[in-house]
Amino acid sequence: MNVELINTGSELMLGRVLNTHQQWLCRRLADLGYVVTRQVAVADTGPDIEQAVREALARADLVITTGGLGPTSDDLTRELIAQLLGRALREDASIVDQIERFFAGRKRPMPERTRVQAMVPAGALVLPNPQGTAPGLAMEVRPNPYRREGTASWLVMLPGPPRELRPMFNEVVVPLLGQVLPPESEFVCRSLRTTGVGESVVQEKIGGLLQPLVAAGLELGYCARSGQVDVRLAARTPSARLLVRQAEGIVREKIGRDVYAVDDEELETVVVRGLTERKQTLALAESCTGGALAHRITNVPGASAVLLAGWVTYSNEAKQKSLGVRAETLATHGAVSEEAAREMALGARQLSQANFALSVTGIAGPSGGTVAKPVGTVFVGLATPEKVLVLRNFNPYDRETFKQVTTQQALEVLRRTCLL
Amino acid sequence: MNVELINTGSELMLGRVLNTHQQWLCRRLADLGYVVTRQVAVADTGPDIEQAVREALARADLVITTGGLGPTSDDLTRELIAQLLGRALREDASIVDQIERFFAGRKRPMPERTRVQAMVPAGALVLPNPQGTAPGLAMEVRPNPYRREGTASWLVMLPGPPRELRPMFNEVVVPLLGQVLPPESEFVCRSLRTTGVGESVVQEKIGGLLQPLVAAGLELGYCARSGQVDVRLAARTPSARLLVRQAEGIVREKIGRDVYAVDDEELETVVVRGLTERKQTLALAESCTGGALAHRITNVPGASAVLLAGWVTYSNEAKQKSLGVRAETLATHGAVSEEAAREMALGARQLSQANFALSVTGIAGPSGGTVAKPVGTVFVGLATPEKVLVLRNFNPYDRETFKQVTTQQALEVLRRTCLL
Repeated sequence: MNVELINTGSELMLGRVLNTHQQWLCRRLADLGYVVTRQVAVADTGPDIEQAVREALARADLVITTGGLGPTSDDLTRELIAQLLGRALREDASIVDQIERFFAGRKRPMPERTRVQAMVPAGALVLPNPQGTAPGLAMEVRPNPYRREGTASWLVMLPGPPRELRPMFNEVVVPLLGQVLPPESEFVCRSLRTTGVGESVVQEKIGGLLQPLVAAGLELGYCARSGQVDVRLAARTPSARLLVRQAEGIVREKIGRDVYAVDDEELETVVVRGLTERKQTLALAESCTGGALAHRITNVPGASAVLLAGWVTYSNEAKQKSLGVRAETLATHGAVSEEAAREMALGARQLSQANFALSVTGIAGPSGGTVAKPVGTVFVGLATPEKVLVLRNFNPYDRETFKQVTTQQALEVLRRTCLL
Repeated sequence: MNVELINTGSELMLGRVLNTHQQWLCRRLADLGYVVTRQVAVADTGPDIEQAVREALARADLVITTGGLGPTSDDLTRELIAQLLGRALREDASIVDQIERFFAGRKRPMPERTRVQAMVPAGALVLPNPQGTAPGLAMEVRPNPYRREGTASWLVMLPGPPRELRPMFNEVVVPLLGQVLPPESEFVCRSLRTTGVGESVVQEKIGGLLQPLVAAGLELGYCARSGQVDVRLAARTPSARLLVRQAEGIVREKIGRDVYAVDDEELETVVVRGLTERKQTLALAESCTGGALAHRITNVPGASAVLLAGWVTYSNEAKQKSLGVRAETLATHGAVSEEAAREMALGARQLSQANFALSVTGIAGPSGGTVAKPVGTVFVGLATPEKVLVLRNFNPYDRETFKQVTTQQALEVLRRTCLL
């Protein structure tokens, strides 16, 4: 089965936004057993979109377009495709109704232009959009004028905003595809996420042992990212499930402690779940990560049962006043020190009465480093009922990567120390 | 001039990595005056790559490929293109030399397979790669067998790793293009970022007034994202600079207060700069955004001069103990209320002695909503030396979008109230 993806948007061709649809849709489709054979991005101009759609219809059983369904003048996809396939557009009263309700719910007048989103090509299915005003559309192109012998293709049009596209794909398109174009073969893929070890060490520990399975059809991949290495185990043979299960057994046998999650699960999710199961609570005292640790924890639904309190104490004064770090400690050892991290964690734990407290203090840069403590130096503290542990790490990265890697190290010390 | 981009990589088609090359190259090319008319991604298989290259050569004056130049078995681009164009491959001694030095410098033996990277199609220019072992290649396809009348095309092959591709493009490809394919016209592009108004309202206010400029060659685009709408003003006519300047004047005249930044600048950067210039300080009291507001502020280098303290007070107890919210307020009005937001902002401002304090309390969901306060209800408080302002908003989105939109609203109320 051939699947092609067409992303429309002049902002893509000008490099003004990142095409996250491509990865997201390719990933979801692969996990469902469909392989995207080609992805194309073109600008929001009639001839470009038309040519891309025609070429894709000439090759693919399933063509998915993203973008161009909105109310503005550069939203052309709906009309162009209707024209290309000779389908009349008619206004769908139930969509008008939904758009009216959408604006009424927000107590805003409905702009006249949004009405164009209620136009539906003859024979198309309407894919409801509870997150916005532009519904998606799906139609079978049968016969397909662009394909040899007129073989039919399915054409699915999705709206551009990710928070509209994603639920629509999951809730409406996936069941539809299951009916009209069931996948031909099973694709099994498990990504084991590790942290705290480098890519080449991971490969050294498991690569040789997995060779016989690779010979039998296992697809083995490594992907190093900020603060983690993913081991990808995939197969699409008839025994795919067994192969991947055997491979996972070997990986867990050799580096089980380093594997913190599978597939898309984040370390913060594992930590919140571990604490929730144990009915334990957490407090956070952040300096250089500036709220990023709290942000990650509170990205997890249900985090409120676990996170009692968080402090962002950038200044020395805030460290003293909010957390009770001693002036003497700051004067003698500095705000970026093992001692400061220790007192921050102790203070946060005591004030919040949480079971555990994490603290972070370091130098994110670009300025502020010294010879003894260069930019990237960071101390991570963990206070438990029994003890305080402080790690010294060196993360000499740009600000964003620094925060990602440092928060990963903080979550990981909590997981290894308290949740294994 | 037609420019097409071909990204090869099975990991792209399986959605395992994000295609950052597409944005980066499209952006760089646009800024240099070249417009990418089409971008295609295909898997690392012979027929797919071959078809994509043939089709691109049939249309484009410049074709850029990424990936497939490395030493492993799925690196096919070099050989396929040589075959397609009937060019013999010969080993280039100076590249072998460079690869040998690369491994010697790292005190590692040179794997025999890396030698394939020294193979160069007849007539191709070698683009040196100081960051890795695979050089890039560039060649003029003249006559071009795939194009009408044999019109020549340029074909540039770049390696996949971003830290190899980017310096190679900047240092070698840009000067080469300047010689062999100088841009036809200047490209001017400004994205005006607005927040607080919907896409269709923005268009209603400015679309009509910009029509004469659009008729004169202005390219006008709208891009709606979580909590913001970008208005893109671009032109590539001889008077591009003037056109874009006039258009920006009209937009600022009509919705100037809504425009918070230009191009890639984030709202938090504008806020930190505004506070720094005024020597003013900020404190944050977050409940439902859980540190996301502090995280955004501290993403800006120099935020430490501005952000005195932040509190993440998820629990009622933390709101009372850390910020001095009254038990009576929480009992009477609830933690998600105008009154709680007011007391949180006041408490944070007073405790930190900052000029301004922002507070956020709401229901991020998925659970916790009521009829009077459904999931998505949020109160944003701003305490200034003169007053306390509380906005009630409704952001019924997934958790990630909820945080993005809510923090955007909080930063924006500070900008509009205190920094204009």
